[in-house]
Order: sequence, then structure tokens, then C-alpha cells
Amino acid sequence: MHQRDRVSDAVVRRLPGYYRHLRELEAQGVLRLSSRALGERMGLTASQIRQDMNCFGGFGQQGYGYYVPNLKRRIGEILGVDTPHHMVIVGAGNIGRAVASYPTFRKEGFVVDALFDVDPALIGQVLQGVEVWPAGELRNYLAEHAVDIVVIATPADSARAVLDTAAEAGVRAVWNFAPVDLTAPDKMELGNVHLSDSLMALSFRMHERALMDEGGSGWRR
Amino acid sequence: MHQRDRVSDAVVRRLPGYYRHLRELEAQGVLRLSSRALGERMGLTASQIRQDMNCFGGFGQQGYGYYVPNLKRRIGEILGVDTPHHMVIVGAGNIGRAVASYPTFRKEGFVVDALFDVDPALIGQVLQGVEVWPAGELRNYLAEHAVDIVVIATPADSARAVLDTAAEAGVRAVWNFAPVDLTAPDKMELGNVHLSDSLMALSFRMHERALMDEGGSGWRR
Repeated sequence: MHQRDRVSDAVVRRLPGYYRHLRELEAQGVLRLSSRALGERMGLTASQIRQDMNCFGGFGQQGYGYYVPNLKRRIGEILGVDTPHHMVIVGAGNIGRAVASYPTFRKEGFVVDALFDVDPALIGQVLQGVEVWPAGELRNYLAEHAVDIVVIATPADSARAVLDTAAEAGVRAVWNFAPVDLTAPDKMELGNVHLSDSLMALSFRMHERALMDEGGSGWRR
Repeated sequence: MHQRDRVSDAVVRRLPGYYRHLRELEAQGVLRLSSRALGERMGLTASQIRQDMNCFGGFGQQGYGYYVPNLKRRIGEILGVDTPHHMVIVGAGNIGRAVASYPTFRKEGFVVDALFDVDPALIGQVLQGVEVWPAGELRNYLAEHAVDIVVIATPADSARAVLDTAAEAGVRAVWNFAPVDLTAPDKMELGNVHLSDSLMALSFRMHERALMDEGGSGWRR
């Protein structure tokens, strides 16, 4: 498998949504579903769904559709939710705590083993069931524990140093919430979450709709 | 401007990134930039950048490139960051507080006027400089104040009721962090943030890379 065989970002962005909807369908006792019905639920076309599934070999049967439990299990395997992931969170502020207590992570196999912070008042405390370690211990901790994902929930100016420490320890993935664009070294996967991007996209749609309601000529000037 | 003239999600997803990078470039004193240089910085092709800009009339000049201050200002206008937005946050837990204290929102014009919570111990407190109101007052508050965006940071089972209250009050946008897929009424823009989607996408890339490193035949079976 070569670099060029990486699945496109657009497909990867949709995959977790498939998993969420299939989990809900399974919980509702739905066993079988056409690509059209799944598409209506997700706001996608049937053909887009078939194309997405074909990235992984396709799982439907002509004239039958998808068997929900199998498709959900297979997409879960593809996403890696069938194997446990050990995470540590650097930064025990609001974002760090929000990640530590996010309700669905644990049941999807993402387990937070430790929080790290520089604040002496927090060190040794147990927040959301997770112990807070001194930030200075991160390097040693990573050397001694198997950690799959380091979550960066620090201020912007500390984020790069945390990424470097994780990289030196051979951690395979970093999930960054600090409001800065980090660049991953070659051997690491990096997910940057910019909350303000999501807010600006919402703001954009509000203004676009206002233009539509005014019956104006749109964005082009 | 008709529904079909809405700018595609793919473009809207990239716009805040343009704004972020242009703001950094401006702060560094860069005045002029080619679409190729901007593309290299953002991991996009020059042609993709020109296509994105053409959705809004295009702002470059052949052979000159983009004038950074103008392009940043124009993209800011398109995103609506040049006009103040008033927000309230329902749910004063970790996610609500993280949004209330997110460092860049205020300077981009997104101002949090109030937090709402059901916990009597929190009501009346000032968290991140924002007063906590009783959740039961949300309806009255929205009737009496101009609120542009309602942020839902409640548990999943309360999210729908908050959305309905916002819709009845004529609020134009809801930004939902509860781990549930909400559907917006016709007159409202809705942004669903699923933190677990971002984590699963990262997990997917980790496993994809492991397959690549093993030299296997990839995802197709």
C-alpha cells in the first residue's frame, strides 16, 4: 500500500458518521438497509455511499442492500474502534477535562490513562476519574507506558514542545486542540481541531442565508 | 441567490483556514503572496485556491498574486468576523466553559453574553467572566436579548429541547456539541461538532498507516 493509496480526506471525514448512524440503526433493531435509505438519513446520495464503501471493497449486495450489524462491525474495524487505544491528555483545563469526560470515547475503546498539567494545585488530583501528573513527567511516562494517542490541550505556545516530546517517544498519533497549526513529523498522524473554524463556518452560513433572503446576487461582486 | 447557489461544504470547510493563515501572514508583515505559496503553506494546489477564491469573485491579479491585507479583510467579511456575534452557551460543564474561554473567539467578534445551567450550585457564578443563568430562563432571555448563536453544551438528552427553544425564539444559528445528530428547522443554520468523529478519523489514519508499513494490500479485501 503506497502513500497514493491513502483514502481521501473526504471519505475519511464521512466514515465516523456512517459508524454513528449504523450504531443507532442497530440499537433500533434495523437489520437491513438500502444505500438509498442510509443516504437519506445521512444527507448523501446512494451513489456516494456505494462509492465510499467501494474504497474498502464494498459490503452491499445488489438488490439486498446492507446487513446493518456486519456493516457496522466492518466500519468499526476500519476505524479501529474494535481495538483499545490508550490516550494521555496534556493540559487539564476545560478542553482537557472535556475530552477526559467525553461520554462515548470509553465505550469506543479510547481510554484516557493520565492527565498532565503544570499547575501544582492540580497535580495529584483525580479529575473525571483520571489522575493529574506533573507536565515535566510526560517524557518519562511515555517511555514507560504504551500510549497510542497524545492529546494536546495546552495553550498555543506550549503545543509544539508537547508534539516534539511525543514524537521523540515514538507516539504514533497526536490530537491537537491548541489554537495553532502543528505539522507532524513523518512517522506520526496528526489531527488538528480548530474550534474557531467550525464557528466561522457557521457564521459564514448565517451570512450566506441572509444574502439569499435579501434576494441579492450572492457572494460574487 | 437560490439554494443551489450555496457555496459547497468543501469550500466552506477551507475558508476559516485561509483566514487563519492570512492573519498569520499579515502579522508577519507579508504583503503579497502567490496562490502557489499560499497553497504550499496550506497543503492545497494553486489551482484549488484559485477555484475557491472564484466562488467569491476571485481576488488575485494575474502575475501579482494576492495582496494579503485585502484578501484577509475580504475573507473576514465573507466569514462574518467583521461584525459582532452575540452567543449564549447552554450547559456550563467542561465543554461550555471551554467555549466560553476559547482564546480567539472574542477577538474575532464572537462574544459570549451568558451561560445557562440546571445546577443550582453554578447559577449566579461568574465563569470565565460570564454569568451563569438558570436554564429555565433561557426562553425569556432569548425573548429579551439579541442572540445570534446558541451553543448547546448539554448532555445528549437535553439537546433537542434547547434547539426547539432557540428555534421558537427565532435564533438564526445553533452550534451543537452534544453527542447527538440534531436536525435544524428550515430557518436555522446548525453546526454539529462531533469530537468523537475527529478522534475516529485519527484512529483510521493510524491503522491505515500500519497497513502501509506492513506493505499489505490495503483496505480492500
